[in-house]
Parts: sequence; structure tokens; C-alpha cells
Amino acid sequence: MATESSHEVPQVVIERLPQYLRALSRFLEEGTTVISSQQLGARLQVTPAQIRKDLSYFGRFGKQGRGYTILFLVEQLRHILGLDQTWKVAVVGVGRLGRAIISYPGFAPEGFHVVCAFDTDPALVGKLTDGLTVQAMSQMAAVLRREDVKIAIVAVPAAHAQGVVDQLVTCGIKSILCYAPVATQRPSDVHISYIDPVLALQSMTYYLKAVAAG
Amino acid sequence: MATESSHEVPQVVIERLPQYLRALSRFLEEGTTVISSQQLGARLQVTPAQIRKDLSYFGRFGKQGRGYTILFLVEQLRHILGLDQTWKVAVVGVGRLGRAIISYPGFAPEGFHVVCAFDTDPALVGKLTDGLTVQAMSQMAAVLRREDVKIAIVAVPAAHAQGVVDQLVTCGIKSILCYAPVATQRPSDVHISYIDPVLALQSMTYYLKAVAAG
Repeated sequence: MATESSHEVPQVVIERLPQYLRALSRFLEEGTTVISSQQLGARLQVTPAQIRKDLSYFGRFGKQGRGYTILFLVEQLRHILGLDQTWKVAVVGVGRLGRAIISYPGFAPEGFHVVCAFDTDPALVGKLTDGLTVQAMSQMAAVLRREDVKIAIVAVPAAHAQGVVDQLVTCGIKSILCYAPVATQRPSDVHISYIDPVLALQSMTYYLKAVAAG
Repeated sequence: MATESSHEVPQVVIERLPQYLRALSRFLEEGTTVISSQQLGARLQVTPAQIRKDLSYFGRFGKQGRGYTILFLVEQLRHILGLDQTWKVAVVGVGRLGRAIISYPGFAPEGFHVVCAFDTDPALVGKLTDGLTVQAMSQMAAVLRREDVKIAIVAVPAAHAQGVVDQLVTCGIKSILCYAPVATQRPSDVHISYIDPVLALQSMTYYLKAVAAG
């Protein structure tokens, strides 16, 4: 199967693949083994045409009129997304949010392992939190290289986010998950995703407003 | 302008509106006053046809060939989404994550005000955190009614999420933002959104894998 190179596939398509993967895994758990793009689309509220087009970037996964074999598609998507391996993650910022992230139970079962944590606060450096010793920012470059960390989660206040992103980029990190509500500048080959609870709240109010008016 | 009722607009469309709103606000800040669906689509990596179709659910916002007047579109979207008012929010679960949420600086500027916080832990109840007194879960129904809270943020461990969602539903809450990595059951008129850092990480690894292979 021909897999196209990353710059030919729109980022928005890549961002939809984990959602397909999760929905497919649920169907598997429910005992379904073959699925149509209509069924998958109905669950995800995406048009079947969109699903077929998104998957077509990566090859042919189903036979006309027969649907997709879920187990095969799940394995292929996991391979395409690089989820058939584990990834080491660093957390920068060990305040309340950083500590909550380090203790988040959802990462490890999905193959993401937080292996180091950094903070600027001398009162925190050297302290143990959920089995990790908080390290000084000055140690970051050496630790990330030694541990072969490829992903960083930024949990510092908004005012410090750009500085931390700059340091991570200097350390060679290409994938950053940022919890600070602030746009950051970075080179085009560095991918930043934002955890943004406000966006989620802003679509829920649509329904609240509809209820209030109705 | 005719606004269709909520059950006629697909949820995925509603969830895209805040992203349009945010991108449009950035264009305004940059001094742009009129924009085409091509320009907006290019920034958001969405097809212009998708944007036109999404907006068409709510009326006509632009003139053929002239693009959208951004300020007008921003005002209309804020009204459609119910963002031209403020909303009171409750936080359930005042551990590390709950405290980080209560102190999150991104909510208030967008009109979301955390006005109460609840926990089951007797050691936490009565304690002050970021200006809020933690209250017992047994007080929840009365407090939510008195404060006219419409939105709840759930920051309890996964094992307790369903129980808390059940209690919130009993209290009449229709909009829940859940940080626990677990699917929850609820009536069809209750909207739950999930904060899911794993989904974000799972699309970033696509690019890491491409770099490693390249």
C-alpha cells in the first residue's frame, strides 16, 4: 500500500484519523467486524464521502459495496499514525496543571509515557511528583536527548509559553501539546496542538441558548 | 435572518463555528475587514465550500463575489452561539486538575465564569481555592439552582465520572465538559464534550513518524 508523504495530506485529515480509529475500536468492542462508510459516518457525524476521501490519501482499505474490515483498518490506521510504537513525553511546567497531566491515567494505555518533567521554580526542582523527579530547565536539552523524548507537553502560564516553546524547538522537539491559551510562533516543521476548553464550551452554549429560547 | 432550530443543524457544524469565530477575530485584529470563504478556508484548512455550507444553515452572511464583512459575521456568530452573554460554570472535582481549571485564565475573558466548586472529600469541603469555597456534593442541586449555573466541568477520576454526570443530569444540567478519559451515558438532550489530550497526541505522532522515516 502506497503511503503518501506527510506534506501531501492536509493536517485536518490527519487530525480526523484518531477519531476514526477510536470509533472503529468501539465498533470492534461491540462485536462489529465489517463496517460501511455510512455507518462510521453516522456515528461520527461526518459524511461518508468525507471518510472515503480522507482514507483514500493512504490507499484502498475497503472493497466497493462491501465496506471495511474493521480489524484491518484499525491496524493500518495505527501504523499510519505511528501508534504501533510507544512515545516518550516530557512535561514542562509542574504547577497544578502539570502535576495533573503527569498523573493523567489516559496516556500510558495509549502508548504515551511521561518520562521527565521540568520547571523553573527552584522550590520544585529535585522534588518527586508521581514518581518523576522535577528537573531544572537548564537540564532540558541534555535530558531530552538522553531519554530520546520526541513530544513535549507545555503546562506553563500563558506569559511563559512562547519562551518554553522556543527552548523546546532549540532542543529539537517537533511535536508540542500546549495547554496555555495563547498563540505561539514556531518553525513550520514544528507541530503544536492546543488543548482548548473554551472552544468546547463555545459550541455547548449554542444548545443552551436554543433551550432557553425554546 | 432565519435561525433554524438546533436539531436541524449537525453537531459537527456547531462545533466548527467557534473555530470560524476565532479565525475571523484574528483577521479583524490584523486589520482585515472583508474576507472570502477561500481566505478563511486557507487559514483553517477547510474547503471554502464547507464554510459556505456551514454558514448557510444560519442565513446569508455575504454577497456573491464580495466576501463576508468580518465584523458583521463575528457579531452574528457570537449571537448564534449564545456568546453575547455570560455563562456561569460549576467545577466538580477539586483535585489537582480541578484546581488548575478553576485558576485557568482563559475562561473569564470569553464570558465563562466559574462560580462554584464541589468535591466529595471532607478534607477539601469548606476550603478556599482561588476565591471559591469548595462545597459538598450534597449541596450541589441547591447551589446550581440558586446560582443559575448552566454548565458543569467534570474533573473527577474516570471511575467517578459516570456517577457525577448522573448527579448533574438530575440537577438539570444540560452541558457538561468532561476531562475524564471515559465514555459516559446520558439523556439525548444533555451535551457532553470531552477534553482529550490523547487525540491531539495521536495526530502529532503521524508527523514524528514521517520525520523518522524520511
